[in-house]
Amino acid sequence: MRPGLVLAALVALCAAPALAQAPAQIPWETPYEAVDPFIGTDGEGHTFPGAVAPFGMVQLSPDTDILPFKQSYARAAGYRRSDPTILGFSHTHFSGSGHSDLGDILLAPVSGEARLEPGDPKVPGSGYRSRFTHDGEIAQPGYYAVTLTDSHVRAELTAGTRTGMHRYTFEPGARAQVLLDLRSSIYNYPGKVSWSRIRVRDDGTVTGMRETRGWAPGRQLYFAIRFSRPMVARSLTSTETDVPYKGFKQPGRSGDDRAQLEGRALVGVFDFGQIDGPLVAKVAISTVDEAGALANLDSDEKGFDFDALRARTRADWEKALGALDIAAPAPMRTNVYTALYHALIAPSVSGDVDGRWRGPDNAVHQAEGFTYHSTFSLWDTFRAEHPLLTLVQPEKRNADFVNSLVASQKVSPYGILPVWAFHGQETWTMIGYHAVPVIADAWLKGVHGIDADAALDAMVKSATYGPYGGLSDYMTLGYVPIDREPEAASKTVEYAFDDWTIARMAKALGKADIAATFEKRSLNWRNSFDAKTGFLRARKSDGTFREPFDPTAINYGSDYTEGNAWQYSWFAPHDLGGLVSTMGGDAAVVKKLDAMFEYDNSKLDYSHAEDIAGLIGQYIHGNEPSHHVAYMYAYAGAPWRTQARLKQIVESQYKPTPEGLSGNDDLGQMSAWLVFTALGFYPVAPGSNEYVIGRPFVERAVLTLDGGKRFTVRAQGLSDAHPYVARVTLNGKPLDRVFLRDAEIRAGGELVFTMGATPNKAWGVKVDARPYSLTPYPK
Amino acid sequence: MRPGLVLAALVALCAAPALAQAPAQIPWETPYEAVDPFIGTDGEGHTFPGAVAPFGMVQLSPDTDILPFKQSYARAAGYRRSDPTILGFSHTHFSGSGHSDLGDILLAPVSGEARLEPGDPKVPGSGYRSRFTHDGEIAQPGYYAVTLTDSHVRAELTAGTRTGMHRYTFEPGARAQVLLDLRSSIYNYPGKVSWSRIRVRDDGTVTGMRETRGWAPGRQLYFAIRFSRPMVARSLTSTETDVPYKGFKQPGRSGDDRAQLEGRALVGVFDFGQIDGPLVAKVAISTVDEAGALANLDSDEKGFDFDALRARTRADWEKALGALDIAAPAPMRTNVYTALYHALIAPSVSGDVDGRWRGPDNAVHQAEGFTYHSTFSLWDTFRAEHPLLTLVQPEKRNADFVNSLVASQKVSPYGILPVWAFHGQETWTMIGYHAVPVIADAWLKGVHGIDADAALDAMVKSATYGPYGGLSDYMTLGYVPIDREPEAASKTVEYAFDDWTIARMAKALGKADIAATFEKRSLNWRNSFDAKTGFLRARKSDGTFREPFDPTAINYGSDYTEGNAWQYSWFAPHDLGGLVSTMGGDAAVVKKLDAMFEYDNSKLDYSHAEDIAGLIGQYIHGNEPSHHVAYMYAYAGAPWRTQARLKQIVESQYKPTPEGLSGNDDLGQMSAWLVFTALGFYPVAPGSNEYVIGRPFVERAVLTLDGGKRFTVRAQGLSDAHPYVARVTLNGKPLDRVFLRDAEIRAGGELVFTMGATPNKAWGVKVDARPYSLTPYPK
Repeated sequence: MRPGLVLAALVALCAAPALAQAPAQIPWETPYEAVDPFIGTDGEGHTFPGAVAPFGMVQLSPDTDILPFKQSYARAAGYRRSDPTILGFSHTHFSGSGHSDLGDILLAPVSGEARLEPGDPKVPGSGYRSRFTHDGEIAQPGYYAVTLTDSHVRAELTAGTRTGMHRYTFEPGARAQVLLDLRSSIYNYPGKVSWSRIRVRDDGTVTGMRETRGWAPGRQLYFAIRFSRPMVARSLTSTETDVPYKGFKQPGRSGDDRAQLEGRALVGVFDFGQIDGPLVAKVAISTVDEAGALANLDSDEKGFDFDALRARTRADWEKALGALDIAAPAPMRTNVYTALYHALIAPSVSGDVDGRWRGPDNAVHQAEGFTYHSTFSLWDTFRAEHPLLTLVQPEKRNADFVNSLVASQKVSPYGILPVWAFHGQETWTMIGYHAVPVIADAWLKGVHGIDADAALDAMVKSATYGPYGGLSDYMTLGYVPIDREPEAASKTVEYAFDDWTIARMAKALGKADIAATFEKRSLNWRNSFDAKTGFLRARKSDGTFREPFDPTAINYGSDYTEGNAWQYSWFAPHDLGGLVSTMGGDAAVVKKLDAMFEYDNSKLDYSHAEDIAGLIGQYIHGNEPSHHVAYMYAYAGAPWRTQARLKQIVESQYKPTPEGLSGNDDLGQMSAWLVFTALGFYPVAPGSNEYVIGRPFVERAVLTLDGGKRFTVRAQGLSDAHPYVARVTLNGKPLDRVFLRDAEIRAGGELVFTMGATPNKAWGVKVDARPYSLTPYPK
Repeated sequence: MRPGLVLAALVALCAAPALAQAPAQIPWETPYEAVDPFIGTDGEGHTFPGAVAPFGMVQLSPDTDILPFKQSYARAAGYRRSDPTILGFSHTHFSGSGHSDLGDILLAPVSGEARLEPGDPKVPGSGYRSRFTHDGEIAQPGYYAVTLTDSHVRAELTAGTRTGMHRYTFEPGARAQVLLDLRSSIYNYPGKVSWSRIRVRDDGTVTGMRETRGWAPGRQLYFAIRFSRPMVARSLTSTETDVPYKGFKQPGRSGDDRAQLEGRALVGVFDFGQIDGPLVAKVAISTVDEAGALANLDSDEKGFDFDALRARTRADWEKALGALDIAAPAPMRTNVYTALYHALIAPSVSGDVDGRWRGPDNAVHQAEGFTYHSTFSLWDTFRAEHPLLTLVQPEKRNADFVNSLVASQKVSPYGILPVWAFHGQETWTMIGYHAVPVIADAWLKGVHGIDADAALDAMVKSATYGPYGGLSDYMTLGYVPIDREPEAASKTVEYAFDDWTIARMAKALGKADIAATFEKRSLNWRNSFDAKTGFLRARKSDGTFREPFDPTAINYGSDYTEGNAWQYSWFAPHDLGGLVSTMGGDAAVVKKLDAMFEYDNSKLDYSHAEDIAGLIGQYIHGNEPSHHVAYMYAYAGAPWRTQARLKQIVESQYKPTPEGLSGNDDLGQMSAWLVFTALGFYPVAPGSNEYVIGRPFVERAVLTLDGGKRFTVRAQGLSDAHPYVARVTLNGKPLDRVFLRDAEIRAGGELVFTMGATPNKAWGVKVDARPYSLTPYPK
């Protein structure tokens, strides 16, 4: 049998149509089947197609190329669908991050002799990388398969919570080898690997670690690999050159009988000889130590039963996705279920099966009563991702998030909550202290299993740590001064919102002093608002606004964070009534919002700002500061305008294709926006326990809550021709207000929209029908 | 008061005469007072003058310079007495190692502004280094003091088991600062520091770590520092240049309010403002983690009472040195007590106060029932250092050594005992598996608290691990073949000796099979001995000896290890009767020994071999292979020749001056040789439970054993004019044999030498008066 024939047969056996290529309506599709992990794997989405369990520690996925650092952005998640080759399969990936790292512990199956370098993608056979074909490439939640055409291997991946499993089917007669490359890393550059180790234990288990100076400094990741077949030979090699001092030679000849190798550029090749049938590799990771990785190794699957693990993870996904039962035409159904899938990947489990975890102090701790999670992209996810998870995930999981954040604060060298952390390590990326609204929102919604006093203490400490992001000045001046701290305007308003959530939680806990202090601080957004220009602006410590001022300018380190005055002037989610007042009332706000969406941006060039994508005028859906802005109309008495804008955004920014996401998914935030918006409401102000009503994009949605209660959304008469909300009922009673209360959802019930062809400009217009605001709306 | 006057006053207050400068006889000196830690700190000794407790984890000592790697040899212990400046005081040093590393956690007191670079020793004030003066420089066991003349600081150091304590007396009115340099390292080169961290905790405690790729790869060392006064300011700086990716900025401005800094080139400066009175810094280290260092911090002294800690450590030294009570003229007394002091520094405690330790697998383990020790320079110390420690240290300490070795083997990635390990990490330096004779010797001498079966298992595994040093071939061929493994001749004979000790212990444990196997292996030294030339030679795998052969050649990686055929041909300590046979009998042996000692080496140049020092012909006392050779005469019926040679060696190789050691002290082996030799006997074959009698160099010595029994040595009539042994009695009865049994010492008693002007050529000559040999002496 020729190699080609064998591969064709394997592909025929294993292949299912890749969903991205089959968007036609399939009415019998389950939620699981509706998910297409290829969405976002090209274009700007930065998602990965590989195998992951819900919130799994392991994200096992193909890496298609590692380019020099400055060219890495397009491969932030390792895989780029348009790349011609696959390097191998590594075990950690971010789902849609704007900055990146990871790609740890790369395994590549090799038939015959193994080359130790990845080689040139344009020269097949020049390295261990292999071309691959999209024919027979499958991505499902928890499962990925691809045929490596140069390596002549059918590779399948699945993953449990703490382990990944590879099943490699070689051609009969081929020598089966597996290469482990500890040099390969997403966002790579010279000196990134500080230290690494490969150890082959007597029973053939391979353990080791690598420490990288990446997005998080000094991050250690340990691993354990066990193969389903006996290793007949091995070779451990360091490819580092110009080592000033190599130390003395450890036992073993040229790599083939070495028990261990340490260094900064290690490759291992494990030889299984000529085998019949597949080779399975089970891989566990740990941030703690090799013993932790070894203990994790059997935690998802004791043996090497790939299909059993795949089935268990599929069941986990079916359960998790089953929190939402949606009726909608296939493209929308695919988009929403894929969005829900992407929303259920992070924060990721980061603690070991024995409860140990590594914290921001780079020390090991023991979790008591919770599972430590990390990968908190909080600047993004405080908005809609975490609020969504309070609805679709068990209370225990949400408590885990809070407990992980508070546990991290307790051991932080800075004494503050995570800002942007992964694998327990702080990266100091983005601004704000947005763990605060995540905690407040969860607690105010009734998530138990949290030490509320410790949480509030952590929140207050985070909000009062002077050296962080201009907080010292913020506490004195009431705003962050731009002459002392970059991105001062954005910091001021985001701090003010976070402060308000502290006040809300403190009040509920009966801590009147704290509540008063932070309620006062929460009005600080006004100190940076320039009534004359009508924009949020950065102020200097002398009180004047910084000049020159260009509301369209976007630059890193400018007055704003990844945005400009157009996007940031709406950021007072807790005080939008106050903002309406400040901006001159409803009509002025609606006019300004329209001006934003209709801004002629044809002469603007934002290509220098990597995160700026998905532009509609000055509305930038591909980045988070805009995410609540379409809902702002509802605060100005024009909910029908929100409805129209949402249609415009949903239709232009989400497509069921690899290029379908207009911006980085940002660990689920882009996706959570779509899930909420599709249901017809959105959490503009987490901590308010309110959702602003937009309009639904699905015919029916049943949300099954933890505990079993169901909240149903129905959209009567929904069609392209009926994009407006004519009326709304909640549990059969007319609902005239533009917001829904969290308790109403959690009680179970039914929200019915009746859709119409034309706007109902009378619905939801009155001031007392409008969502929460700290200060009253203008009458 | 001018600075100079203040310093002069301080010096006057603190100074005691440096003993190296006062070798005159001081009859009332205690053993403690007789020790001069300056001996060996210049010339070839590689000892350090700083503060250390017996077997202490911390060796707190001044570093006088860090030169480029290739020029580092002379500063292997950090301090070179002839250097003009001191960089600061670091916490880890080897006592007399031939290769080096350490110099971790350097603190330097600074008056006024701190420069972050050490500066040029020729340009005072160009950096943080300071000139110092030997006036008032004091070194005592556990105490060191020096005046830093540029820094205007009187610096005193003391140390407990796991902590070092610095007392800095600044001049009144000076701003007191302490600089922490995590870049400084003994044997430094680019890229040595893989990662490091400084963290300033809220209470002013400074913690951190550094990971180095040094003599041991990937070694991590953690620290905790607490100051006796409040820190008024701090500055953390990374001086690394050309960092390809720096990550995001952590909170804090230019270092002065940072809580933490990570990187590869860190300096911290801690400011205590203008203070009155001294500033004390207490520093703990840990190989485990920062929590371990913090727990160690209060383990020796809860507060900052420098004098109390100094007094406790002095008491510990007095107790340890008190095992031996010697009467001798001052120079010999100084030499012997300093040798005993140097013999009581390593192996060093390496486990934390809570019992945790880091092993050769780079993982953390818990010691149960023993204190983990490391810094095992086994190729050196199996000879006399460990045998000495079985006599002068408590059984518990000796059991700790064995338990540490066996615990290390249990977690070794290679499954074998340490070869040359420090801080728990293996360096693979030198040859042999000499942990084996250390364990066998201790166990055969009755050291309890050891799992003998586990120990024997560890010994056998170490002796049968094929990939190590040609062992696979050794087991097949009966010798290590030089065409496949360097230094094959030395390896063959050292393996054979180690094998014999396994056989001895196995036999005692009733394991006849193991005993038979290893007794057979122990004769393998013969397979590499060339009867034709009369020298040990390296054989090739085809059985022939490698040509060309030059018995005087010394090269790294040659047929021999740091030596040549002259030194190595005597290495069959367990079968010297067999060697006498092989060499052609007593007369031939005596003739060859004399030829060795009297060899005209004036035309030989061994300057390329750093360890080759202390030459007497081809006898090289500065390195270990020669150490038993002077005693070899006793195996050939000429003990009076041993007596003569010992006088020659002692007088030429040990002087009570900084340059007084002829070679590296090698973690106590050079010193242990002197202690034994001074007492009149030496453990030529550890594992035999015999000591070969030489001649005493002290008038009286009382050895107080663990348990209280005393063994007294008296040398009647000892003088320069009476260098020969006329007769010997043991407990009053004539002793005609040339050896002493270990049990005879441990039982307590009195060994009396009567010295004479001329050799007693009849004493100890008969074959049955000679020491242990595996095969009979020729009759």
